[in-house]
Amino acid sequence: MGGTKVLCAASLEERVPAFLRGQGTGWVTAEYSMLPRATNTRSSRERDTGRVSGRSQEIQRLIGRSLRAVTDMAALGERTVQIDCDVIEADGGTRTASITGAYVALQQAMMMLVRQRVIRRVPLEYPVAAVSVGILKDELLLDLCYAEDYEADVDFNVVMTANGGLVELQGATEARPFARPMVERVMALAARGLEPVFRAQREALRRV
Amino acid sequence: MGGTKVLCAASLEERVPAFLRGQGTGWVTAEYSMLPRATNTRSSRERDTGRVSGRSQEIQRLIGRSLRAVTDMAALGERTVQIDCDVIEADGGTRTASITGAYVALQQAMMMLVRQRVIRRVPLEYPVAAVSVGILKDELLLDLCYAEDYEADVDFNVVMTANGGLVELQGATEARPFARPMVERVMALAARGLEPVFRAQREALRRV
Amino acid sequence: MGGTKVLCAASLEERVPAFLRGQGTGWVTAEYSMLPRATNTRSSRERDTGRVSGRSQEIQRLIGRSLRAVTDMAALGERTVQIDCDVIEADGGTRTASITGAYVALQQAMMMLVRQRVIRRVPLEYPVAAVSVGILKDELLLDLCYAEDYEADVDFNVVMTANGGLVELQGATEARPFARPMVERVMALAARGLEPVFRAQREALRRV
Amino acid sequence: MGGTKVLCAASLEERVPAFLRGQGTGWVTAEYSMLPRATNTRSSRERDTGRVSGRSQEIQRLIGRSLRAVTDMAALGERTVQIDCDVIEADGGTRTASITGAYVALQQAMMMLVRQRVIRRVPLEYPVAAVSVGILKDELLLDLCYAEDYEADVDFNVVMTANGGLVELQGATEARPFARPMVERVMALAARGLEPVFRAQREALRRV
Amino acid sequence: MGGTKVLCAASLEERVPAFLRGQGTGWVTAEYSMLPRATNTRSSRERDTGRVSGRSQEIQRLIGRSLRAVTDMAALGERTVQIDCDVIEADGGTRTASITGAYVALQQAMMMLVRQRVIRRVPLEYPVAAVSVGILKDELLLDLCYAEDYEADVDFNVVMTANGGLVELQGATEARPFARPMVERVMALAARGLEPVFRAQREALRRV
Amino acid sequence: MGGTKVLCAASLEERVPAFLRGQGTGWVTAEYSMLPRATNTRSSRERDTGRVSGRSQEIQRLIGRSLRAVTDMAALGERTVQIDCDVIEADGGTRTASITGAYVALQQAMMMLVRQRVIRRVPLEYPVAAVSVGILKDELLLDLCYAEDYEADVDFNVVMTANGGLVELQGATEARPFARPMVERVMALAARGLEPVFRAQREALRRV
Repeated sequence: MGGTKVLCAASLEERVPAFLRGQGTGWVTAEYSMLPRATNTRSSRERDTGRVSGRSQEIQRLIGRSLRAVTDMAALGERTVQIDCDVIEADGGTRTASITGAYVALQQAMMMLVRQRVIRRVPLEYPVAAVSVGILKDELLLDLCYAEDYEADVDFNVVMTANGGLVELQGATEARPFARPMVERVMALAARGLEPVFRAQREALRRV
Repeated sequence: MGGTKVLCAASLEERVPAFLRGQGTGWVTAEYSMLPRATNTRSSRERDTGRVSGRSQEIQRLIGRSLRAVTDMAALGERTVQIDCDVIEADGGTRTASITGAYVALQQAMMMLVRQRVIRRVPLEYPVAAVSVGILKDELLLDLCYAEDYEADVDFNVVMTANGGLVELQGATEARPFARPMVERVMALAARGLEPVFRAQREALRRV
Repeated sequence: MGGTKVLCAASLEERVPAFLRGQGTGWVTAEYSMLPRATNTRSSRERDTGRVSGRSQEIQRLIGRSLRAVTDMAALGERTVQIDCDVIEADGGTRTASITGAYVALQQAMMMLVRQRVIRRVPLEYPVAAVSVGILKDELLLDLCYAEDYEADVDFNVVMTANGGLVELQGATEARPFARPMVERVMALAARGLEPVFRAQREALRRV
Repeated sequence: MGGTKVLCAASLEERVPAFLRGQGTGWVTAEYSMLPRATNTRSSRERDTGRVSGRSQEIQRLIGRSLRAVTDMAALGERTVQIDCDVIEADGGTRTASITGAYVALQQAMMMLVRQRVIRRVPLEYPVAAVSVGILKDELLLDLCYAEDYEADVDFNVVMTANGGLVELQGATEARPFARPMVERVMALAARGLEPVFRAQREALRRV
Repeated sequence: MGGTKVLCAASLEERVPAFLRGQGTGWVTAEYSMLPRATNTRSSRERDTGRVSGRSQEIQRLIGRSLRAVTDMAALGERTVQIDCDVIEADGGTRTASITGAYVALQQAMMMLVRQRVIRRVPLEYPVAAVSVGILKDELLLDLCYAEDYEADVDFNVVMTANGGLVELQGATEARPFARPMVERVMALAARGLEPVFRAQREALRRV
Repeated sequence: MGGTKVLCAASLEERVPAFLRGQGTGWVTAEYSMLPRATNTRSSRERDTGRVSGRSQEIQRLIGRSLRAVTDMAALGERTVQIDCDVIEADGGTRTASITGAYVALQQAMMMLVRQRVIRRVPLEYPVAAVSVGILKDELLLDLCYAEDYEADVDFNVVMTANGGLVELQGATEARPFARPMVERVMALAARGLEPVFRAQREALRRV
């Protein structure tokens, strides 16, 4: 995803949030943040306001949902996996890069748990990854860089599994409403665009 | 939208956020909150944590984007309209009810500005409204109440203009990935479901 | 109380604050807040500062004390009633309207507990209600609206029980000190002014 | 006021809050805080919660109102006097001691401004001081220490000017409602009890 | 230490922080704060920002470390001593005065525990005290007042035990780097300067 | 410094803090933070508490002072350089690695300003770098890794310039006081240990 670099890490805790306690099922959650100099112009640290920005919250909720959609929570057992996505360099696509990288970190953590005989099998049903698609004057653009993202009329984020299922579909415009048939075209382009991304995930996992 | 009640109010400020200053264009933004007893079980006030919850932030950003997509910012001029959506009773669909009601408040505020000769015409391009659609075991459900929302495998929020354009499309699952052809079915149902909603908006505006 | 509208709700929790634990007695506490557009000019939300304003705190402490003064805490048992007073429209007298409405909510909650056989009798000793009295150039004004409140030299809030006992008496001036004999006149006017208020409470409770 | 010790300081700023700007009038405001070891049991610092407690806010608002009631704001001019009341040792009566001491600090600051020819005369109309009165089983108690305060059925704080005018009268009970005639008896006792307090203020000012 | 006045208090809690639980050893920790009018120009209260300033944190960590270095934690047992250092008047040297005074408060608290037979002996190994040394154009200055501190090229804080051991040595410059041989001269001057300080501690303890 | 990795970035702002405005001199300041997974055990994000931890504040103040000590503020002009030190992996020595890397970032930024003809010469007087020294049972250890840091009786941080001047010297113990002659031995070892560090800085700068 262009010049974007995101550090993705998975941490295991042997407990679950209060609302899940005693049900024998697990949880996957995510935090997302950007270093102040990940962008061209330095941004201030969220710790200084004591609030997670609306944008960061939206992204980390999206990452968490995307991973939970492919996790077999009963097979994970009463454990929480905490995913950290920290953007080191940002050049557009930080949220889709975070989902894609977070899956790799999650899979690696699960493989380690299997090796340590904590769980019997990796409780992940399919690989999951994400890509953005923009509409700029009726033309579709795959994997927007920052400049394209800024210009596009409509922004889509598409989160899919490796076997073509949709996990999350978000299309938004602040400029011109878009027509219904565009949605199918967006999904088709995203599916094609995700093929090399799933390959890159498989290679990253092979190397471990 | 069932038993849901949301108070929507529009406030005008004769200035715009810093990033728009001097460009002759306006801004529309929204805040969303729920009274502690809007729900069956009392929830605590966001003021006590000093943070707007991730959910509230996501919803108020959605409301703001939806309204901005139908506003002619140049015709509004260097003014900000601040929309407040306060949920008095919650029975599912508070975010779609908020968008639908917020449009009425925004339109009323604009009509008052025209009457006061502050602006020449109402700077809104089409009515905008929203509805939710759920997928529960391959069956589609329109306008989910709280209990249905809880059970659905996939949740969609569809924000459309009165002439059928899409402004925002959000589909998400934490359970089972959904197939691409479902998306077209969801949009079609939403479009039909929004017809009485747009009628209700027109009636509300006629009564003023 | 003029155009003022306050939503009052009572919520029951089967536990008491730490300082009361194990003593077999209950607790009544209140939260008070105003919607941003309850007033003519929009005010900002307290959640954005992360602090409850001094005014809100003062009012919610007053509501809590007023209700506790008429509650038999031993008969309530180790339970907390949390009262929420949310001002929807403000036209003066929001604190006195909150106390008056909060008593109705508390009484209703207690009646429901009796019907559910959780407690044997309603543990409230007398109805309690409140009214404001202003002094404007030696003339007394009952139940100040916003404009009168702004002009009055001295503001009194009088909280009384239906049988004429005083629960709270607050008189304050930032303009001209007032003479001792005024206090008796204020209390007499408040007592007369509260008669229709106590009637309204009884009617509201009959309708449930 | 028993073993209570409060440091009272006045600071001058050559500007007023935004709502007073350009009107040629001044402002007096107060902050109140307690050292963690002012009390028998250490309390935690308000800075750690980032919130001023409801109690502190109520007291500092009371101190501010009491001082403003005797200040000629036009004669003060567009200046703010900030009063700090910091409780070093607490043995009951910290709010009444704060008002009494704050007046001395305010008067001293004004005298210094006169000496420096910033203002022509001290813009204070009368000395102001405060005392507490409690009702314990129909008996009145003057200037409650901590133990008495804890036991009293009803607590009054009476803020008066040296010539007998009332500036603030607060009577509250969480136990038993009190009868109207008690109020006159409370005010009479407070007036007598404040005589030596006003003398102590005069002496403190003479010593400067 | 010039006109500096610091109130130092020790409070005992019969528990230790989580990381020490069950090890049979104690803990000593400190909080440091300044009254807003301790300085010539009023500073604002840390509670208003909800953050302890970097300076306050640095100082309170220094006080805590200095006291822990001379405390026999096993002899103290699973207890925490919380030290409060509140600066009433500041004229330079508030951190060194705080350490010196905090030791007296800690020793007094320990003596009281011995008298109450909670512990067998005072678990303090040596008296500890602190002094500042400045370098101004190659000249050494002992115990800097505010004006000297402001002018010095290099500031040292030296924390020593009564038998000459070093507990903390901090030398910093924002102006000109200093040469290594200066450090020995600074330590020698500090040791001489601390002699009357240790005497003052002994006298303060004798008077109790 | 072992496995420690710190990203150091310099950002330029064409203004200075309020207390320096109009004096023609510049400012250098630093922020320090650690990613949650920089350590073996995940730590929580400072943004969640809304406070910068005492440790982070102490470190970022140290970095800022160290850089300011070698910067010619008049030659920099009314500009602020903001240094960000973000720890990606932590294996002991993160504060000394931050100072050492921050100097490189600062020097690079200054070289860029010279190339852009904003300033005439690099306003830095000497390279500055830092190293830690520990005392463990009278033995000296250079550049402590995490495990050694944990065991050492005394910790020193030594910040020096390339020509041997001292900029900051911090020695602290929570265990056993140390003798004066140790300080000279510590400084000598630090000076030797910094030789390869200054070489590494020169190489890093040559590569740009």
